[in-house]
Amino acid sequence: MKEHEFIKIIKSTLNSSYIGDDCAYLKDLGIVISQDSLVEDIHFKKTFITPYLLGYKTVMVNISDICASGACPKYLTIALSLPSTTSSDFIENFYKGAKDAAGNVEIVGGDITGSDKIYISASAIGDVKGRKISSRSHAKSGYKIIVSGEHGNSAKGLELLMQKNCFLQTEEINNKFIKAHLMPEAQIKFSREISENIEEDYAMMDTSDGLADALFQIAKTSQVSLNIDTKKIPHDPSVDMHTVFYGGEDYQLVAAVPENLLQKISGYKIIGSVEEGLPSVKIDGKIFNEPDSSLFNHFKE
Amino acid sequence: MKEHEFIKIIKSTLNSSYIGDDCAYLKDLGIVISQDSLVEDIHFKKTFITPYLLGYKTVMVNISDICASGACPKYLTIALSLPSTTSSDFIENFYKGAKDAAGNVEIVGGDITGSDKIYISASAIGDVKGRKISSRSHAKSGYKIIVSGEHGNSAKGLELLMQKNCFLQTEEINNKFIKAHLMPEAQIKFSREISENIEEDYAMMDTSDGLADALFQIAKTSQVSLNIDTKKIPHDPSVDMHTVFYGGEDYQLVAAVPENLLQKISGYKIIGSVEEGLPSVKIDGKIFNEPDSSLFNHFKE
Repeated sequence: MKEHEFIKIIKSTLNSSYIGDDCAYLKDLGIVISQDSLVEDIHFKKTFITPYLLGYKTVMVNISDICASGACPKYLTIALSLPSTTSSDFIENFYKGAKDAAGNVEIVGGDITGSDKIYISASAIGDVKGRKISSRSHAKSGYKIIVSGEHGNSAKGLELLMQKNCFLQTEEINNKFIKAHLMPEAQIKFSREISENIEEDYAMMDTSDGLADALFQIAKTSQVSLNIDTKKIPHDPSVDMHTVFYGGEDYQLVAAVPENLLQKISGYKIIGSVEEGLPSVKIDGKIFNEPDSSLFNHFKE
Repeated sequence: MKEHEFIKIIKSTLNSSYIGDDCAYLKDLGIVISQDSLVEDIHFKKTFITPYLLGYKTVMVNISDICASGACPKYLTIALSLPSTTSSDFIENFYKGAKDAAGNVEIVGGDITGSDKIYISASAIGDVKGRKISSRSHAKSGYKIIVSGEHGNSAKGLELLMQKNCFLQTEEINNKFIKAHLMPEAQIKFSREISENIEEDYAMMDTSDGLADALFQIAKTSQVSLNIDTKKIPHDPSVDMHTVFYGGEDYQLVAAVPENLLQKISGYKIIGSVEEGLPSVKIDGKIFNEPDSSLFNHFKE
């Protein structure tokens, strides 16, 4: 997919100021909205996931987008396109998983249609009341870069699943890495603590496309350099640094916030700071201008 | 698709009061939200539509859902899942069509992913300020049943397209029926006039799934009988009454409203009235309890 190229075309065709962040902030209505899709054989394989877990993940992925904005996740709609062979059990278990993941977020509608493969697209609505909303363009020189938890676990879980050639077994979900991949947790508390306590503009993204992608998006959109100390990035000792940077779907949050906020929040790790300079990410002192994974090959030595 | 069966399972699994109408009315936020999908080879074939028209129709279909609620359509997000062979031209023309259809409604985001076939899911947001929101459960005995325009044109247009075996030619879009199918118009004005002027609860639906479906949904959910006079249903003389009732995708509105409203609105046709009785639709005096199309076979004589 030429996703970035397509987004450029969409932005110029629509001439809209909204396209860019994971959520659109609709100020007149006091809400944020996001939409995210999961496609069979692109985002998941039926052999590696159960209907329950698919419902669970669909909801968490969308709640995570709202958390990245700092808004309070409130409502979800889910559109399902399903092959005609789909059983009632699939629907029931999918929605049990969706409901368990949703917690206080209410699933209020959607759409069901036919299709060849399973396509899922959900929209989430967040309430901005009492919250300051983030934008990836709001990182500023002097800000600290903080994250909500470990990176790379989901990618390692996917790797473990890919080594299998049979359906997922129930007990495998207890494996830390497989669980990170199939049952990610949106960082609701981390998001709320920041957005309820911060006064300045700030940048925040989730790491659905990986930590490296999030850092480069913030650096480019904010026109700053992010200086990262790899020793400070939380990760499981068994996960290599390449996976920490490029493994997607951890759904952790990365934020660039003023230092004075840190005394008011908890559960964060500082991994670096924002500096003036050309849009770039400085990793242990080495400057990268593009998130090309080959640049990180020195971690593989 | 066992759509109605699946929706029953979803309602009972989620135990939600929201599932049922085309839009969910989120009172605390003062908005309605809907989501609707278009799937290649289910809802459209690439040979019968252009990328521009696909973008146009995607937006209109979703705006129509908001119009059915009575809210003011404000914002849209669009998720596209596209084969890797998709060209930049496709994206540009799709969004040109989407923008033209959107008018004052702003497209504020979405998602792009890969897939085997084209899968489109859009969400629309409507503002309820100054409007009374409909529910299909709010038809009451004594109300008049009104519609916004001709029924069956879209189905006839689809039939004309199905007879072709080559790509759509530009001039064919000028055909009244093909245009009704490919470039439906959401009934924004009809919806606004009703929802800004009405004081009582009322029922309104669009005819995306056909006039018969809309009438039966209102009858069943409101627990009333709808008495319809076929002579009063606006339709092109070349369209038979079976197509008028069962042809989908006209995106006209059907509403059950108190008679006193009619002097305050324009552009409607009265096609019948609401009566007490078991949930049913009375067509020219003959009672039908289910929207089984075989029941309407007498129109084919």
